[in-house]
Amino acid sequence: MLYHAAIEITLRSSILDPQGKATSHALDQLGFEGIEDVRIGKFVELRLEADSAEAAEALTRSACQKLLANEVMEDFAIRITEAAVV
Amino acid sequence: MLYHAAIEITLRSSILDPQGKATSHALDQLGFEGIEDVRIGKFVELRLEADSAEAAEALTRSACQKLLANEVMEDFAIRITEAAVV
Repeated sequence: MLYHAAIEITLRSSILDPQGKATSHALDQLGFEGIEDVRIGKFVELRLEADSAEAAEALTRSACQKLLANEVMEDFAIRITEAAVV
Repeated sequence: MLYHAAIEITLRSSILDPQGKATSHALDQLGFEGIEDVRIGKFVELRLEADSAEAAEALTRSACQKLLANEVMEDFAIRITEAAVV
């Protein structure tokens, strides 16, 4: 079965985020008010073949741990859905 | 009221994603099987002050249109939640 994995990879809160700070500053300059903090992360989408949603999640988690995320500095959250048949 | 906005920014499907292709190749090399496609996007988190969830979403959408996303090449999806009081 074909699954879609959406992975949100975020810097841990203890890690400084200069890209987020620069973006926050740019939003200020554009006149946006009320935005107190900006953090920039990565969003990875996989389309994968697996026997079950659990197997798809396990494969995705392993890909995150081995390649996609750096667990020293980053957290990740996985969302598995059945892929639409194209 | 304090809100948290999670923004998933993805390349439109018609746009080539060389970073995704390279990641897909790297996963192959690591022995991952069943992963058919990888797309890499951005994940942006805002903490913002607004009168309502609707106002928070409008502000976030405007920030995406004016700075965070490039609508020629990218789509974005916004998720607004009430921020936990720290």
